Amino acid sequence: MTTPWSHRYAYRTKTLTSSTIRELLKLTQRPEVISFAGGLPAPELFPIGEFQQACQRVLDENGGAALQYSTTEGYLPLREMIARHSVRYGLAAKPENVLITSGSQQALDLIAKLLINRGDRALVEAPTYLGALQAFNVYGAEYVSVPTDDDGLRTDQLDEALRSGPKFMYILPNFQNPSGVTLALERRKTLVALADKYGVPIVEDDPYGQLRYEGEHLPPLLVLDRETRGIRRDNGYHLGNVIYLSTFSKTLAPGLRLGWIVAPPDVIARLVQLKQGADLHTSTFTQMVAYEVARGGFLDQHIRRLRDVYRERRGVMLEALEECFPPASGVTWTRPQGGLFLWLRLPEGMDSHRLLEAALRRDVAFVPGSSFFANDAEGRRYMRLNFSNAQPDLIREGIRRLAAATLEQLREPASP
Amino acid sequence: MTTPWSHRYAYRTKTLTSSTIRELLKLTQRPEVISFAGGLPAPELFPIGEFQQACQRVLDENGGAALQYSTTEGYLPLREMIARHSVRYGLAAKPENVLITSGSQQALDLIAKLLINRGDRALVEAPTYLGALQAFNVYGAEYVSVPTDDDGLRTDQLDEALRSGPKFMYILPNFQNPSGVTLALERRKTLVALADKYGVPIVEDDPYGQLRYEGEHLPPLLVLDRETRGIRRDNGYHLGNVIYLSTFSKTLAPGLRLGWIVAPPDVIARLVQLKQGADLHTSTFTQMVAYEVARGGFLDQHIRRLRDVYRERRGVMLEALEECFPPASGVTWTRPQGGLFLWLRLPEGMDSHRLLEAALRRDVAFVPGSSFFANDAEGRRYMRLNFSNAQPDLIREGIRRLAAATLEQLREPASP
Repeated sequence: MTTPWSHRYAYRTKTLTSSTIRELLKLTQRPEVISFAGGLPAPELFPIGEFQQACQRVLDENGGAALQYSTTEGYLPLREMIARHSVRYGLAAKPENVLITSGSQQALDLIAKLLINRGDRALVEAPTYLGALQAFNVYGAEYVSVPTDDDGLRTDQLDEALRSGPKFMYILPNFQNPSGVTLALERRKTLVALADKYGVPIVEDDPYGQLRYEGEHLPPLLVLDRETRGIRRDNGYHLGNVIYLSTFSKTLAPGLRLGWIVAPPDVIARLVQLKQGADLHTSTFTQMVAYEVARGGFLDQHIRRLRDVYRERRGVMLEALEECFPPASGVTWTRPQGGLFLWLRLPEGMDSHRLLEAALRRDVAFVPGSSFFANDAEGRRYMRLNFSNAQPDLIREGIRRLAAATLEQLREPASP
Repeated sequence: MTTPWSHRYAYRTKTLTSSTIRELLKLTQRPEVISFAGGLPAPELFPIGEFQQACQRVLDENGGAALQYSTTEGYLPLREMIARHSVRYGLAAKPENVLITSGSQQALDLIAKLLINRGDRALVEAPTYLGALQAFNVYGAEYVSVPTDDDGLRTDQLDEALRSGPKFMYILPNFQNPSGVTLALERRKTLVALADKYGVPIVEDDPYGQLRYEGEHLPPLLVLDRETRGIRRDNGYHLGNVIYLSTFSKTLAPGLRLGWIVAPPDVIARLVQLKQGADLHTSTFTQMVAYEVARGGFLDQHIRRLRDVYRERRGVMLEALEECFPPASGVTWTRPQGGLFLWLRLPEGMDSHRLLEAALRRDVAFVPGSSFFANDAEGRRYMRLNFSNAQPDLIREGIRRLAAATLEQLREPASP
């Protein structure tokens, strides 16, 4: 039965396909399923005691303000903290460069709203974050995809892609979602130089930058852009060619829905206007509580703990994969230096959608790769595995189940 | 100095004008200003102790879930509570009819995203809620405005307006923002019948419905629509011609950013997909805390308290207006039966924008009427006054200052 509404939907609903991840998250709520599907932090590491203290303090000392409407830009002490923290990475942002968003998913939505006219092209990595594709699709985006390898975006193919006239580039340089790969330093420099040459700005999405388990921190594109363009560090960051996004979802708690954008002040001013119309402002209470938990060095200390735990889990998953998928299996995977995800490639002819059905019968879940490509068909051989959420024993057991499902499928004749 | 971004903005940024309300909220943060500008609840009534207890309980009993990602639809017990509560008003919604949003501003944004193609017309009241205009503008909406009087929308002018082919109607039937007027029962019935006749659905925005200080509750358009169309109450609400919105911002706390949409399940399914791309989901933590505070009858009891306090403040403002603006002043105003706002009309030739400048010099603020019209020029004689935020003595003093500014301006020669 249809309603009076359905024939009135806007063009953008035609681009909607239900997100495989979100539907899976429902399926995998069955307690017997070992899920490598979500991008969920380990809930046992949430600093619950610190949150309790912070809630009490915020409500005791500032309850009237915490529960009231507030400014669209976000809670000033939190923006100041983010600006201060950014200096460490050479970003040199000021509070007026920072907009607090309702998770970094909202940052993607606001940036798409700001930039995309129907039919405009976004240059994206193949694969790329599916939530970005969802956010961009509804504004009628089209795509130019550039392939990636173990060093990230293939910048040798970038020149040609840029000549097709994309409006902006969307890049995840650190421990990319879904592939886990990191953009090498030389490629970062090439990317930023080509962005400058073609006048195509960059949206740099960095949710996992602080979750590095080995190797040296690499400079953000935002910083390399400033250096390339000869912008002085103290000029208030007016001329940047890069918008930078990050989030508290992976370092503190995703249930707060707190992310941020660092951008030139005139871009921030426009985004603020768009955010006014989108949700007025992000929860005053969660912003004040997050600030209260994070301040005084606690967040740094907490992130060190997360790194230790996730480094171990990554190791456990890599070991289990080596054990369960010998070279003869034809299955290969990435070895991320940080973040939350591994990326598996199946032997030619195998299909990760079909494998998911077999895996779910064995109570193990992952996200099929096709969700992460602007052009679906490219991803059928790939799958994304999360290693942050499950504890080591479950990771080992989950990989065993996954290997069993894969071997079963390898033995089956291909479906007609 | 421009950035590489500004020439890349999408068409929708051309519709952006900074919201007068939001800019005013900044100005009026000076402590000496008596502000009738915002739509702010009285912060001294926030149930801070209950929030503290709720935070402790949620984090103690369910901290891992409260801080984790959750489903886009919203926290199920909260959706169940909203559905149960709606039965009281004859809405008979089920949890699958309810989507939790990040404030009802997000509900407006999602509905606009769902329905509006560039150039589509929305039928709105004149005046109407400026946040709705902001949300609709960015999707390229155009408008058909229908005037209002003391009984709300002039339904005698609706037939003609509907013939111009609007895609949907946006109506605030109770204690409208900004005018404070309530749509009379007979007009509600006419509205719903005409919506059915022309097949133009209704978005019913009801943030203040529970804040009635006198008179009888009137049935929501959603209920009258079901009756008109002969829909049985128990059919799961599949065929409705009305989408209903409300919020916890006026009854519990706006700083949480919690609103909701009641709609047919197929509309909810589409809105869920759009919300996935917009912010994944609303904060799990604030949803669980709000549920914990509201449950067990506390919210009803708290709303009775709000009604008593706001009824008194409304009375104080009406009295002060009568005292300070005698009939000879030519200033008139509405007498709302509920909600947060009064609507003043200045004598012919006066301009509320110019008056605001004079008022701010005397440390009193309001919102000029033009912000609330799809067609700006109509509103120059009007102004919106909020009576919920300031305490009685400040209301009296603020109205005295406002009268002084008005009289001063009446005496001045009009600017060239």
